[in-house]
Amino acid sequence: MRLGIVGLGLIGGSFALGVRRAMPEARIIGHDRDEASTDEAIKRGVIEESATWRDLGSCDVVLIAVPVRQMQDVLAALSPVLSEGVVLTDAGSTKGAVIDAARTVLNDRIAQFVPGHPIAGREKSGVAAAAGELFEGRHVVLTPLPENSPETVDKIEALWQACGARVVRLDAPGHDRVFASVSHLPHAIAFALVDELASRPNARQLFTFAASGFRDFTRIAGSSPDMWRDISLDNAAAIADECRRMEAKLAEIRLAIEAGDGDALFALMQRARDAREKWMAGELEGFRDDAA
Amino acid sequence: MRLGIVGLGLIGGSFALGVRRAMPEARIIGHDRDEASTDEAIKRGVIEESATWRDLGSCDVVLIAVPVRQMQDVLAALSPVLSEGVVLTDAGSTKGAVIDAARTVLNDRIAQFVPGHPIAGREKSGVAAAAGELFEGRHVVLTPLPENSPETVDKIEALWQACGARVVRLDAPGHDRVFASVSHLPHAIAFALVDELASRPNARQLFTFAASGFRDFTRIAGSSPDMWRDISLDNAAAIADECRRMEAKLAEIRLAIEAGDGDALFALMQRARDAREKWMAGELEGFRDDAA
Repeated sequence: MRLGIVGLGLIGGSFALGVRRAMPEARIIGHDRDEASTDEAIKRGVIEESATWRDLGSCDVVLIAVPVRQMQDVLAALSPVLSEGVVLTDAGSTKGAVIDAARTVLNDRIAQFVPGHPIAGREKSGVAAAAGELFEGRHVVLTPLPENSPETVDKIEALWQACGARVVRLDAPGHDRVFASVSHLPHAIAFALVDELASRPNARQLFTFAASGFRDFTRIAGSSPDMWRDISLDNAAAIADECRRMEAKLAEIRLAIEAGDGDALFALMQRARDAREKWMAGELEGFRDDAA
Repeated sequence: MRLGIVGLGLIGGSFALGVRRAMPEARIIGHDRDEASTDEAIKRGVIEESATWRDLGSCDVVLIAVPVRQMQDVLAALSPVLSEGVVLTDAGSTKGAVIDAARTVLNDRIAQFVPGHPIAGREKSGVAAAAGELFEGRHVVLTPLPENSPETVDKIEALWQACGARVVRLDAPGHDRVFASVSHLPHAIAFALVDELASRPNARQLFTFAASGFRDFTRIAGSSPDMWRDISLDNAAAIADECRRMEAKLAEIRLAIEAGDGDALFALMQRARDAREKWMAGELEGFRDDAA
């Protein structure tokens, strides 16, 4: 088993460590456009050595864990040196645009690419924050292509399972809509709120009194602007749709506030708290599941 | 020193424990409209005994820590039995409406009421979650009235300082605008987002894939609907104004997404991340401070 990692950050590094933990005999090599990250990854035992595109092209599996808009360049570099048996996968937070990019570059080798998205992260980024247990108990979504052979998809699934992850399969448009709702929209709001308040004339006063609720609400505004610009552009239609719905929902709550409609506000808050409590307790049976 | 507490929840209970820690000789009594909370508070040593309105009316200081829309009823109950030297204070998250209510009920004894707001909380509520160290290093905002004597305000300030808090004075309208921005708006958004997604036909799927970012972003949607309906109604104008600005800001980010304007998105996200990092590091020197 030879595993290649492109992008030696939190996700790429944690996958390498997770696979090595489960398969100590695996040979893991990697590449990062930032040499310091590669050196750090070697120093920390995340990868054994720095890999050329040619080295990567003859691995058994290559995980590409770079910001989604860099995926096409990475695939373009790999494509000319890609051996037949190699299975490529990615860790991008959007799937539709990544698949389009992969099709453009890989052409008739698209069957070798199994799109994926591990649902895991931490406040810290970079290979220094990588941990073999990052994916334990976490979902990993695969959005297999019609061209993928079952064995190819199973190979990627098995590696994520070796890292302790729960692998789920979705179609790519469904994946992109779900994550626009539960991840991309909250990120957009968190970035927007911090920027809005930081640009006010009394910003210093505002941030003096911001407390733990604000800290947690805006934690995801500490995420990488590179990564989130790319996600926003890649999944633009779904995220814009979510923004529009949220603008309407905020207007709804505002109108209830302006009308002094305490009953409507209480009902909304109660529903929200109940839903969140059930979710936190892992009780999703009561949730609507109308859409097939 | 006789201290009375009305509302034996997280805040009232923590204040009692904090004061007792600093002044072991203090006599602390309390009242809650829920008898079970009173019993629990006695059992846990938070208060010594249950107090009647008359008992409370002859304390040295009474803290009223109930949802803001219950404040007027509490003050109305205390008013007829209120001795001259007693200083009342509150822990409400809004100040303008609480002050209006206090003036209505206390009339010419309004000088005995020093409005306050401790900026502290935890995910759990109730007297069982109370802790003497809850206010250590936290801000407590006092919004003194023109009628308050300096000694009266100093007395309340000293008690909060005894709990380890950093006391700051603001005018009430300024307080209400600041907390609409950094607390009330984020709560409204968190409640709105959870309710929006929980009401979707594919709610179960959405909450299956919601992860740690969503958990932290919506933590404040686990707050008490009673308390937050009251705050929303009490501070309606400022919160509605914040909602309107946030609707505009969300529309701004949506238009950048729809236009594919990666530079604008990157710039906004970068500004937000930088501001948040500075704030987390306690570095507020670079923040705008134009408004006097």
